[in-house]
Amino acid sequence: MKILDHGSLTLVEAWGGDEQIVEAARMSTGKGFLGWGPKACSKCVGEQHDPNCGVKWMSSGALISPCTCRRPLGCDCGATGIVLGDEKLLRYLWTHKHTSPFEQVGATFEVEAPIFVFREWHRHRTQSYNEMSARYTSLPDKNYLPERCRCNPTLSENRQAQGHRKLPGTLTEVEVDAWLDDLERVYKHAQTIYDRGLDMGIPKELARLPVPVARYSRMRASANLLNWLRFLRLRTSPEAQWEIRQYAEGLQSLLAERFPRTLELFAEGGL
Amino acid sequence: MKILDHGSLTLVEAWGGDEQIVEAARMSTGKGFLGWGPKACSKCVGEQHDPNCGVKWMSSGALISPCTCRRPLGCDCGATGIVLGDEKLLRYLWTHKHTSPFEQVGATFEVEAPIFVFREWHRHRTQSYNEMSARYTSLPDKNYLPERCRCNPTLSENRQAQGHRKLPGTLTEVEVDAWLDDLERVYKHAQTIYDRGLDMGIPKELARLPVPVARYSRMRASANLLNWLRFLRLRTSPEAQWEIRQYAEGLQSLLAERFPRTLELFAEGGL
Amino acid sequence: MKILDHGSLTLVEAWGGDEQIVEAARMSTGKGFLGWGPKACSKCVGEQHDPNCGVKWMSSGALISPCTCRRPLGCDCGATGIVLGDEKLLRYLWTHKHTSPFEQVGATFEVEAPIFVFREWHRHRTQSYNEMSARYTSLPDKNYLPERCRCNPTLSENRQAQGHRKLPGTLTEVEVDAWLDDLERVYKHAQTIYDRGLDMGIPKELARLPVPVARYSRMRASANLLNWLRFLRLRTSPEAQWEIRQYAEGLQSLLAERFPRTLELFAEGGL
Amino acid sequence: MKILDHGSLTLVEAWGGDEQIVEAARMSTGKGFLGWGPKACSKCVGEQHDPNCGVKWMSSGALISPCTCRRPLGCDCGATGIVLGDEKLLRYLWTHKHTSPFEQVGATFEVEAPIFVFREWHRHRTQSYNEMSARYTSLPDKNYLPERCRCNPTLSENRQAQGHRKLPGTLTEVEVDAWLDDLERVYKHAQTIYDRGLDMGIPKELARLPVPVARYSRMRASANLLNWLRFLRLRTSPEAQWEIRQYAEGLQSLLAERFPRTLELFAEGGL
Repeated sequence: MKILDHGSLTLVEAWGGDEQIVEAARMSTGKGFLGWGPKACSKCVGEQHDPNCGVKWMSSGALISPCTCRRPLGCDCGATGIVLGDEKLLRYLWTHKHTSPFEQVGATFEVEAPIFVFREWHRHRTQSYNEMSARYTSLPDKNYLPERCRCNPTLSENRQAQGHRKLPGTLTEVEVDAWLDDLERVYKHAQTIYDRGLDMGIPKELARLPVPVARYSRMRASANLLNWLRFLRLRTSPEAQWEIRQYAEGLQSLLAERFPRTLELFAEGGL
Repeated sequence: MKILDHGSLTLVEAWGGDEQIVEAARMSTGKGFLGWGPKACSKCVGEQHDPNCGVKWMSSGALISPCTCRRPLGCDCGATGIVLGDEKLLRYLWTHKHTSPFEQVGATFEVEAPIFVFREWHRHRTQSYNEMSARYTSLPDKNYLPERCRCNPTLSENRQAQGHRKLPGTLTEVEVDAWLDDLERVYKHAQTIYDRGLDMGIPKELARLPVPVARYSRMRASANLLNWLRFLRLRTSPEAQWEIRQYAEGLQSLLAERFPRTLELFAEGGL
Repeated sequence: MKILDHGSLTLVEAWGGDEQIVEAARMSTGKGFLGWGPKACSKCVGEQHDPNCGVKWMSSGALISPCTCRRPLGCDCGATGIVLGDEKLLRYLWTHKHTSPFEQVGATFEVEAPIFVFREWHRHRTQSYNEMSARYTSLPDKNYLPERCRCNPTLSENRQAQGHRKLPGTLTEVEVDAWLDDLERVYKHAQTIYDRGLDMGIPKELARLPVPVARYSRMRASANLLNWLRFLRLRTSPEAQWEIRQYAEGLQSLLAERFPRTLELFAEGGL
Repeated sequence: MKILDHGSLTLVEAWGGDEQIVEAARMSTGKGFLGWGPKACSKCVGEQHDPNCGVKWMSSGALISPCTCRRPLGCDCGATGIVLGDEKLLRYLWTHKHTSPFEQVGATFEVEAPIFVFREWHRHRTQSYNEMSARYTSLPDKNYLPERCRCNPTLSENRQAQGHRKLPGTLTEVEVDAWLDDLERVYKHAQTIYDRGLDMGIPKELARLPVPVARYSRMRASANLLNWLRFLRLRTSPEAQWEIRQYAEGLQSLLAERFPRTLELFAEGGL
């Protein structure tokens, strides 16, 4: 999946699925995954036990005195004869913030993104990272050059973060293009000095000093689903910088293929 | 896999393998997994570049002046003609404590163990847990009863933890058996009061108060491989309590099936 | 601070305060803590720059063309002449979930609580724990005996967790007292066998097997403020077991003495 | 404390000390901090109990049969009459990797360092960070310019990381100086475009794109002592890049002022 001008996002591997989340949650009661619904209630056909019939039962479920209404006990369908499947439990877990079962499954991605995006990304301390290192290899000459409309504060959504909310007028296309040309020239200049250092024999770890934060790097990031969702909540928000949001939205759609029911709940809100 | 008298250990799922560890490590240089060895060196046939031939090259690998010895540059086989495969990198990562690639793979287990074992286990804060809860279900009546020889301090390895290292004599079989009988009676007594509370209608979360720490519970535990290995290092040590060591040793052999090369390195030491 | 029948909660040490949270947040803009308010606006006396006067300025704050209205730019008080102090930033951080500054301060507590409470507590993996160990010392003979009214499900708030919501009648005082007497007898029985084992020379780590989960233990728990607040959010909730809630409420009031402004925001909701 | 050309390191706050580490460790046995030593043994004056005298005692310490040698039991000084103080326990904890007590104390630092140093630093996921953000403020124009000798691979210790171990000759001073001049020019060029973008009204978060990874930033970092020591172990190693090593060595000396006994143990090795 392509992101920005030179970036990408690839699912390397995922483990577990929506069912394993339910299975893990059922540890607390000792049952497993029972199946998605809806389906017929196994305990009733639309008739529920009459609480006034005087029955008394033990914690084991066995009756102490006979049930006079002779209708099933403990039916959870509300006498409709139809029960929801485990999507009901999944929703319950989500809305009641029982988050631990969502840690039992997860995914690993390979990501190409500019360094300034990785800088924000790595603040999430619950992921495992392995990134390309400029100490050991020379970084490919790929830098992020934003599209013209992205540079225009009046067109961007998050005006507050731009620190220019009081700007009376707006930037012209010509002005933006001029700055983008300037930017490309700095990128080239920096690369020339980087290459020159490498060729001379300056250690790689120092030769990289002029590399701009717009330079693309690459990493693998691995986390459990709960931690991916926390990342998404923060990084798909309108307060997040537009560039990292593109990655977060890509992740969300890749995760939705593997964990469709959970990502549907995520999209409704919560967390 | 059976552990202790009523316990068990089951691999629910694993993700990645030894190869993915190498692949993740290669992020730093931009290459992937190259294959396990040994195999023929692709750069030489047992003849290495002669450092005295006067060649000079650039960081790009291109020659500046012609190589007079005409033998290959940058051969890593030491002119033997045979190179090790990626097991060499895996070993390098391990012995140099480059631990992050070992976080990119992992496994989930289902565990039945006594509460006192879970108490030690849950100090490991890097695993994700979902445990049976006595607030929501009544705990099955299974308690750990140690074998006779386990109770005899002179037969156990870890004398220090027992606080009785100065004990002049030793316990007789008859003494130990008498105590184990006592123990079984407390277990039964506790269960009677637990059941009675549940039957009366005492809330489950309080009815459990008499349950002994020897009671079996059940959980799923999920972690990446590095964190499993850290758990193993601590819990397979002779300083660990014998009971949790049985679980740690079981885990080690289950992990060895999935990550054979890494577990071999682990067995050699380190971490 | 006394909690339950034999428990306690003591603040060992705290670091930082509400001011250091603001100071840490100001890292992002390079300013420090400016003081709690309200106070007079340093930029205006109730008159704001007129956006229609045609001024144009640079990011440095310097004017490009002359300002004709000659009133101050960039006043944040809304021309009221009065600005709030840093309580405004603290509230902004809280309500916008900028949680990282709340990690820069923290506290350590010493806690005496029953084992079943510690079992719930230790699921919080962001605290640092040091607990009394029955492997190294014999546990003092103190067990939690709930008050009579606590055992009556119709009087408790969280009916759902009790698994008896369909109970037709209710428990009588006589019934509850009988069960509590039973409970005390199990506690005594367990202690007798525990002591007997220790006296015989059964290793401490095994002699503890009959100890009930109601037994008191002791620990130190250390965490940053954000993690304490996350603990409080979960454990002061009506869904939490009443016993751990007593500890959480105690913690909340001890933290409020040290971090009064943050705990006020916490009490309003969020997180 | 000054580090590199424009960097710094300041202790903001520390909590606890060597004594609190001992105190926390003593949770396991229920005792507190007893004092640093050496001091006279309170149980003997150089005479130890004779194991052949036939005494038998209970776990409580009470005698069952009379001691005939009438010399003290349970003396830990080895009949020398002199006991070490709690430095003995501190050393025991350290050498036996009982690390949890070292989590009960900690420290917060303010750090100014180049972005490429922060990139390595932030891989440590157990610290809490608050960093200056180029989204909200324009970064001061300070960039790291290495000293001449630092650029010469034959003078640096870690040749392997430099990827030039086969380099036949070495760099001349003139060559290095030329490259450092080049570097300064790129820094200036990047700053010009950065300023121009800001002045035009390009959003701050995009105007920063040309900023090099050599640019200085500022942050607060907070962690418990164990995690600081793990950071030091990795970052004071000869394998670490020289620049981050300067920060690690500075941290080590600042921590040694607050936790002198622990940092002495650290310096001996382990972890």
